[in-house]
Amino acid sequence: MLIDGEHRRTVEFIDGKLLLINQPLLPHRFEVAVYSGFREVADAIRTMVVRGAPAIGAAAAFGMALAELAGEDLDEAARTLRATRPTAQDLFYAVERVGTAAANGGSAIEEARDIAEEYVAACIEIGRIGAVLIENGMRLNTHCNAGWLATVDWGTATAPMYAAKRAGREFTVLVDETRPRCQGSRLTAFELGHEGIPHAVIADNAAGHFMARREIDLVIVGSDRIAANGDVANKIGTYTSALAARANGIPFYVAAPTATIDPNCLAGRDIPIEERDGEEVACMFGADTVTGEMRAVRVAPSSSPVRNPAFDVTPADLVTGIITEKGIYLPGSIMEALGD
Amino acid sequence: MLIDGEHRRTVEFIDGKLLLINQPLLPHRFEVAVYSGFREVADAIRTMVVRGAPAIGAAAAFGMALAELAGEDLDEAARTLRATRPTAQDLFYAVERVGTAAANGGSAIEEARDIAEEYVAACIEIGRIGAVLIENGMRLNTHCNAGWLATVDWGTATAPMYAAKRAGREFTVLVDETRPRCQGSRLTAFELGHEGIPHAVIADNAAGHFMARREIDLVIVGSDRIAANGDVANKIGTYTSALAARANGIPFYVAAPTATIDPNCLAGRDIPIEERDGEEVACMFGADTVTGEMRAVRVAPSSSPVRNPAFDVTPADLVTGIITEKGIYLPGSIMEALGD
Repeated sequence: MLIDGEHRRTVEFIDGKLLLINQPLLPHRFEVAVYSGFREVADAIRTMVVRGAPAIGAAAAFGMALAELAGEDLDEAARTLRATRPTAQDLFYAVERVGTAAANGGSAIEEARDIAEEYVAACIEIGRIGAVLIENGMRLNTHCNAGWLATVDWGTATAPMYAAKRAGREFTVLVDETRPRCQGSRLTAFELGHEGIPHAVIADNAAGHFMARREIDLVIVGSDRIAANGDVANKIGTYTSALAARANGIPFYVAAPTATIDPNCLAGRDIPIEERDGEEVACMFGADTVTGEMRAVRVAPSSSPVRNPAFDVTPADLVTGIITEKGIYLPGSIMEALGD
Repeated sequence: MLIDGEHRRTVEFIDGKLLLINQPLLPHRFEVAVYSGFREVADAIRTMVVRGAPAIGAAAAFGMALAELAGEDLDEAARTLRATRPTAQDLFYAVERVGTAAANGGSAIEEARDIAEEYVAACIEIGRIGAVLIENGMRLNTHCNAGWLATVDWGTATAPMYAAKRAGREFTVLVDETRPRCQGSRLTAFELGHEGIPHAVIADNAAGHFMARREIDLVIVGSDRIAANGDVANKIGTYTSALAARANGIPFYVAAPTATIDPNCLAGRDIPIEERDGEEVACMFGADTVTGEMRAVRVAPSSSPVRNPAFDVTPADLVTGIITEKGIYLPGSIMEALGD
């Protein structure tokens, strides 16, 4: 999608190197980080230089490709990459697929390229299919960044917005800032701004208030893993957002490629929930309002412990529908999307 | 309550001056700001040097006292103080009471002292009455700071915790950080730490997750205004917290002195909701993790608009009970607390 009018992708593989937009620096600095080894890619996933389930999947696939290029052991690369983050299904999907292709005599690089292109195609389809939900004048809400920065291009939750915008529909988006890492205020607001979509950032705490005041008509979020029963793991806070939508009769959609579905997870309770470093909650990273330098400030007392689960599970019965590249499914029927 | 073992009050009136603990600097620096005129007190309320409905009420009462001492027009002082913040009922209650006492030939200073002492007594009673709800081994949750820093002493939501602790009960508290101004991670965590109560800070987004995982047994929050029908205005995010508690069968209590009840507000929809500066959401204030200096960092793009409602309304039917100094009331019966 567009940054200052120029088309970019989150994950690119050029001349045997992996290029990732360095996301912790956004929206304040735009930098592309370059990787030539799978261990560095694993670090990039762990430290969230790249994040978002499909973008993690594509980056990990290219991590496998880098291992192949360097003549390194693909099993070790797969183990290292899989160990970076526990929740996002796309990571396991992509590493498995590249590993299997290579084990069967195929090319890891070609398989990784296929995966990345399939993600782009899936997101474009999610956009085409989901755009019908966005009517003129609607006030949307989204949580976290399930935008193009979370995928290779177009995004999942944002793809219907970008498609609707190109179709001439006018709408606004209330963007949950999405503590603790603020992917909403840092990344989704940045994306929507560069795509010319009217939006406002809100504290996560305010979403329920705006729903109760009838200032939100539709919620679309992404997903990190979808269980076979339609339960959805997504960024922490998605569950309470879904509860507030339900309490106020507001449609709550999840957008994700079918690669995010985990047929081996029968229900949400089986999805491992990553607990991350408490410093993500106790401190805040941003641009010094005086000098513009990137800095961290501590907010909580250093003596106070922190608990920091990165994801939660939204039960299927709170989800209106799941938008995939194959169509919109009732959550309880999501396994049909894996058919054929 | 205690800071480093020494007893402090949030609001004190000594030698004709008003002393307020400067709260935006906490937990990183402890400073007491001194005021000798009502206009400066109004600024302190507006900029949240002092915040929390009862603490605002007490500070405003002493603002009236300062006006009396300086021989200034009490009506003008009342107008100025009332115009600082629109939601907290205690502000209007206290200014009205001091103004009426002075108009009837009484002393504004004495009336203000009475109000402050009544707040302390009410909070002690709230603690005594509410402590029975806290059983050994319970995991509590609270939102924002309805602690002693939000009152003159003891707090509202925290008073039962402090009373239960003194009675030897053991329990833990998950503290919502409470974006945007992080009164939970800055102030409640600071209070609980100094009182020796085990706690952990969480992102607001995580409260629903911990409720769904049965890691929270009881929620107690404060209130800025309670309508006659039992609807409760409190810090933004309280409503979604109450929804999550209800969805998971967790008792959700509100603790407030009867001064917070507004008999003229029939229902929550009549309570004015303050919208504050968007910079509170877009930026974050804290102690530089390298130098310790207090700094603000920008998180959201400076080009993105922000909406920042400071409070929301929790409908009476989501509230298990309201703990006042006169007893615990069903929200629909809260007007009984104003009788006799």
